[in-house]
Amino acid sequence: MQKIKIGIVGGTGYTGVELLRILAFHPYAEVAMITSRSEDGVAVADMYPNLRGHYTLKFSVPQADQLKTCDLVFFATPHGVAMSMAAELVAAGVKLIDLAADFRIEDLAVWSKWYGMEHTEGALFDRVAYGLPEYYRSQIKKAQIIANPGCYPTSTLLGLMPLLKAGVIDASKVIVDGKSGVSGAGRGAKVAMLGAEMSESFKAYGVEGHRHLPEMKEKLTQVSGQNVGLTFVPHLLPMIRGMENSIYATLTEDLSQAQLQNLFEEAYQDEPFVDVMPAGSLPETRMVKGSNMCRLAVYRPQGSSQVVVTSVIDNLVKGAAGQAVQNMNLLFGLEETCGLTQVALMP
Amino acid sequence: MQKIKIGIVGGTGYTGVELLRILAFHPYAEVAMITSRSEDGVAVADMYPNLRGHYTLKFSVPQADQLKTCDLVFFATPHGVAMSMAAELVAAGVKLIDLAADFRIEDLAVWSKWYGMEHTEGALFDRVAYGLPEYYRSQIKKAQIIANPGCYPTSTLLGLMPLLKAGVIDASKVIVDGKSGVSGAGRGAKVAMLGAEMSESFKAYGVEGHRHLPEMKEKLTQVSGQNVGLTFVPHLLPMIRGMENSIYATLTEDLSQAQLQNLFEEAYQDEPFVDVMPAGSLPETRMVKGSNMCRLAVYRPQGSSQVVVTSVIDNLVKGAAGQAVQNMNLLFGLEETCGLTQVALMP
Amino acid sequence: MQKIKIGIVGGTGYTGVELLRILAFHPYAEVAMITSRSEDGVAVADMYPNLRGHYTLKFSVPQADQLKTCDLVFFATPHGVAMSMAAELVAAGVKLIDLAADFRIEDLAVWSKWYGMEHTEGALFDRVAYGLPEYYRSQIKKAQIIANPGCYPTSTLLGLMPLLKAGVIDASKVIVDGKSGVSGAGRGAKVAMLGAEMSESFKAYGVEGHRHLPEMKEKLTQVSGQNVGLTFVPHLLPMIRGMENSIYATLTEDLSQAQLQNLFEEAYQDEPFVDVMPAGSLPETRMVKGSNMCRLAVYRPQGSSQVVVTSVIDNLVKGAAGQAVQNMNLLFGLEETCGLTQVALMP
Amino acid sequence: MQKIKIGIVGGTGYTGVELLRILAFHPYAEVAMITSRSEDGVAVADMYPNLRGHYTLKFSVPQADQLKTCDLVFFATPHGVAMSMAAELVAAGVKLIDLAADFRIEDLAVWSKWYGMEHTEGALFDRVAYGLPEYYRSQIKKAQIIANPGCYPTSTLLGLMPLLKAGVIDASKVIVDGKSGVSGAGRGAKVAMLGAEMSESFKAYGVEGHRHLPEMKEKLTQVSGQNVGLTFVPHLLPMIRGMENSIYATLTEDLSQAQLQNLFEEAYQDEPFVDVMPAGSLPETRMVKGSNMCRLAVYRPQGSSQVVVTSVIDNLVKGAAGQAVQNMNLLFGLEETCGLTQVALMP
Repeated sequence: MQKIKIGIVGGTGYTGVELLRILAFHPYAEVAMITSRSEDGVAVADMYPNLRGHYTLKFSVPQADQLKTCDLVFFATPHGVAMSMAAELVAAGVKLIDLAADFRIEDLAVWSKWYGMEHTEGALFDRVAYGLPEYYRSQIKKAQIIANPGCYPTSTLLGLMPLLKAGVIDASKVIVDGKSGVSGAGRGAKVAMLGAEMSESFKAYGVEGHRHLPEMKEKLTQVSGQNVGLTFVPHLLPMIRGMENSIYATLTEDLSQAQLQNLFEEAYQDEPFVDVMPAGSLPETRMVKGSNMCRLAVYRPQGSSQVVVTSVIDNLVKGAAGQAVQNMNLLFGLEETCGLTQVALMP
Repeated sequence: MQKIKIGIVGGTGYTGVELLRILAFHPYAEVAMITSRSEDGVAVADMYPNLRGHYTLKFSVPQADQLKTCDLVFFATPHGVAMSMAAELVAAGVKLIDLAADFRIEDLAVWSKWYGMEHTEGALFDRVAYGLPEYYRSQIKKAQIIANPGCYPTSTLLGLMPLLKAGVIDASKVIVDGKSGVSGAGRGAKVAMLGAEMSESFKAYGVEGHRHLPEMKEKLTQVSGQNVGLTFVPHLLPMIRGMENSIYATLTEDLSQAQLQNLFEEAYQDEPFVDVMPAGSLPETRMVKGSNMCRLAVYRPQGSSQVVVTSVIDNLVKGAAGQAVQNMNLLFGLEETCGLTQVALMP
Repeated sequence: MQKIKIGIVGGTGYTGVELLRILAFHPYAEVAMITSRSEDGVAVADMYPNLRGHYTLKFSVPQADQLKTCDLVFFATPHGVAMSMAAELVAAGVKLIDLAADFRIEDLAVWSKWYGMEHTEGALFDRVAYGLPEYYRSQIKKAQIIANPGCYPTSTLLGLMPLLKAGVIDASKVIVDGKSGVSGAGRGAKVAMLGAEMSESFKAYGVEGHRHLPEMKEKLTQVSGQNVGLTFVPHLLPMIRGMENSIYATLTEDLSQAQLQNLFEEAYQDEPFVDVMPAGSLPETRMVKGSNMCRLAVYRPQGSSQVVVTSVIDNLVKGAAGQAVQNMNLLFGLEETCGLTQVALMP
Repeated sequence: MQKIKIGIVGGTGYTGVELLRILAFHPYAEVAMITSRSEDGVAVADMYPNLRGHYTLKFSVPQADQLKTCDLVFFATPHGVAMSMAAELVAAGVKLIDLAADFRIEDLAVWSKWYGMEHTEGALFDRVAYGLPEYYRSQIKKAQIIANPGCYPTSTLLGLMPLLKAGVIDASKVIVDGKSGVSGAGRGAKVAMLGAEMSESFKAYGVEGHRHLPEMKEKLTQVSGQNVGLTFVPHLLPMIRGMENSIYATLTEDLSQAQLQNLFEEAYQDEPFVDVMPAGSLPETRMVKGSNMCRLAVYRPQGSSQVVVTSVIDNLVKGAAGQAVQNMNLLFGLEETCGLTQVALMP
């Protein structure tokens, strides 16, 4: 097979470097250009020395003409950028994977409210698929634009969908207690993200409302056919990579611990990147560090009516760049796991 | 006032050294003896070099005769030890503060089930008070044995009681998502607590049942007069000190965000060690590192019927040794804050 | 005794908050004002929530008239600020402690070269003392301006001086391998100091020349009377607080391990804040976290001619705010240890 | 080419799991057996869940008969084990790579002194090569037993050899200030390695003598032909993976900064796993996390006669399992980089 000619718009952040790390060994990927206005002319390996010896590529100013020569363009940009360039690239037949939020929410009024800008590209949505392969695989294969999911939604949807689809929980009162490593906050220089501030500390944030909440609600409702009520409280972990979501719901059917385990194992038996942990064990974020896996456990503690799911991913891999490559594989008819079989780094 | 003659049984763990750190500057404390079978003859400052220059005391083998000469004995021992020595010391008129769990649960059948041993000292319970001053102050003042609360119960009870006492939540379905730094696991050499294992990772543990669950249930029910149903999932944080509990409950009354803020501010307006954060802000564990404070925030996100409380403490201070000294102050008629006004170490 | 009326200029950084933490319990300190142009009107406890309940003070715009009413002004400002205000305050009889570098180096040509600005206040140097009490105590007592030493110089000078003063090492080729926690880089928002950048990593920096190098050279030469040649390589530690310097020199006299131990113990036998560790042990930075101690060990490994000293401090305490308070005590005739007897936080 | 049939003796430690991680994607490796007496019957993926989905292999009791059917046996065992089994395996034609120290030091009297046991297998040394390919490649290719170097020696030798071989430094007084992440201490449950002990702290250890010192001295002397005098002080870093050595030596020739840079670039121009950083930059341990690279920089600060080299590796990869696989590639005539081109995980 011919290599896929790839452009990356805005690759200076953590998702950008992670994308480059993963694509470095993808047998069918050829990163032809990577853009950044501020870093024009800088070698990516100078900015990210882990890439020394793997890339000679330099950042360049984004130019539509050149991006149009690509088969695929990844957007690792702030919200709004992909939207502004999408129509032109789509018209040129280029495929798009947006790692930001521009195409994640179909209800554009909701999107505009949470992202604080108007959405101008509603017309493109018939070419869009939400890039969570476990639940949108057939749509992804046919789409031209992939809305790569947020990290919290990826981990939460994988943990919650089996229960919702089986119709065994009260969908109106689900609680998600999320925790993310600091790389999720990006590479911008903010005081609150300094090592001297976030190390050796833990806190909730965004209790009043996080942008991943409407994304989760829409997709949960869409896939399950039930109106889902969600309370979502994200927290910041004193570590770089890794995300855990603890999900709480009330059972409406009297499923035993063994039946719950079975429900999850069946739901994901054919999924290469979702691992239901053995009964009685619990996932740790380090079990997925640097890998594209989501690992899950389901519990019914003390036989109460509450079901608890804990779900871990690497926020930069299955929560961003890895899932983007998984979507690329689907878009181009490749083996879904191609280039994505890294073993997590442990310890 | 004369100094309080203090004995510490089993001071080799983290609560032991923290007790010594706090007592070093307590104006009325005189640590007369500290016991450890394994470290007999070792200077505490050799084991804990932060104490160099502050203590010349050595560990000694515990002897009842000598402990009986104390005014107060702290137990910083494994579960079961305080129980075995309590009757003799009580008979000698000594006061006891147990930092382990021997007297935390009044329902001895429940205690025995969770702690895996028979409770032989039920007869002593009329001298016992549960050492959470904010809710048991008058009992503490009259008691001879203080059951110093667990760290999760301290943080959770302080966060949940105002709602329960006001009768504004559904008590039957409360969810507590707890997170603790690794010092909470103690100083025992376990592989899972190695730096190479717990750093840069996060996980839930004890989902099937943690010993602090029955303790919380009993006290919540006792103080609120309502039968409380609790789902409690503890997690391990990649840091040394600090604990956060995120508490979720369903409102049964339509209290606004401002009314909730007001409810908490009134509940704790006279409490020196509970700080309700200003509306719109959230506590971080580093805001209490090394101090005896509990800091709290209450939210009603997106106007739903869910109320969220986040509560932080230093697990070794308000969650153990600091609260023990607070109880000592009450037992001996001292100012409650005496020796406990340290400012948290930040950054 | 009357309280010392204190002003703090520029207290928004880490040395500022640490100064407030320490002064909160100093029996003779009254912090009357704290200035910041950018944070005018903000309560210090809102910026540093660990101070909630300890201070009601707000930041205000610096005004010379008000600062002149103080007995003492601390400068916790960028380099150059103290210099610009010093003459006016000195004329008004105010005492000054500069935590920045404006008065650390007497050779103003050297200073100007390393700090990139002209030094305009050479005339004030007859009122200046270098604030390392262990070697400049008598000068400090008589001075009006204290140049509070840098963190690397404090740790290094305390480790190296006994050898230099005894004349037992080759002063021309001393090597200092320094390591500092990230709080030493301050609270400015820089990408390299983000938690996602500095955690789980270690690096040398400033190998070509660090500003603390000329400061160390001048003071070592001044106190020892020997021309000292120094190679200094600082490194960044993935932790918040703490500094270690490993010092290497060649013995010119055949001192045994025991004699070296003795040399250090005698040098510091009367010093309250320098602790020579017992022979055979080594200091760890956590042994001084939050305390004003410097802990040291001296070794002659394998009987070679090399002597090795390892010296640890908390960079924000003995390396900055704690030492500043120690200097304040000396300036005002107080007990040198007043308000500085905190026990290090361990674990 | 046929796959190499591999046995791993003692794979329960961190080098064991790292070996499995790397071999999982080596195109010519077939891990046929992995032994552990204590974990007999346990699936490696149960012990190391990052391997779930990559291995179905179980630990088994070591049996010489089965190991003899392998082409290659790795020893990831305590010192002394490889020695006890080597002769039998060698006689059976099996190749051996020992990740412990049994064959690292040719002077057996020195070995016995530092390792506290007699060396019984001196006769095997004519089949042994020291597994640092950059300096022993030709020997490795012809050997049957590879003594895989220690982590400190790997990083130090790569940093020091160019200077020694060029004869431009005083070989009699070299100083190595080493720093290692805690994974270097292994997976044994020791109090000093608990997260609550080693996090947020830094210390020197083993100043009186570390086992890697005689190994370094012997190899430096062997390769350079000069008698090398070394002072080596290792330190413990509060992080999991990564090692940095700062090397100090006195120049005997007046080489400029540019000449030193050139010396190193020429020395390593053909080496796939040694990267001389661009002039003016410095390596960080995160630049090699999870990869087999060593990154180096050389400086002559302030034009003094001191040269400084800083050298970083991942202690578990180039410092252990990665280098072992590099040696395997050489032993079996494969491309040296085969299976070893992972990009470091950054951030």
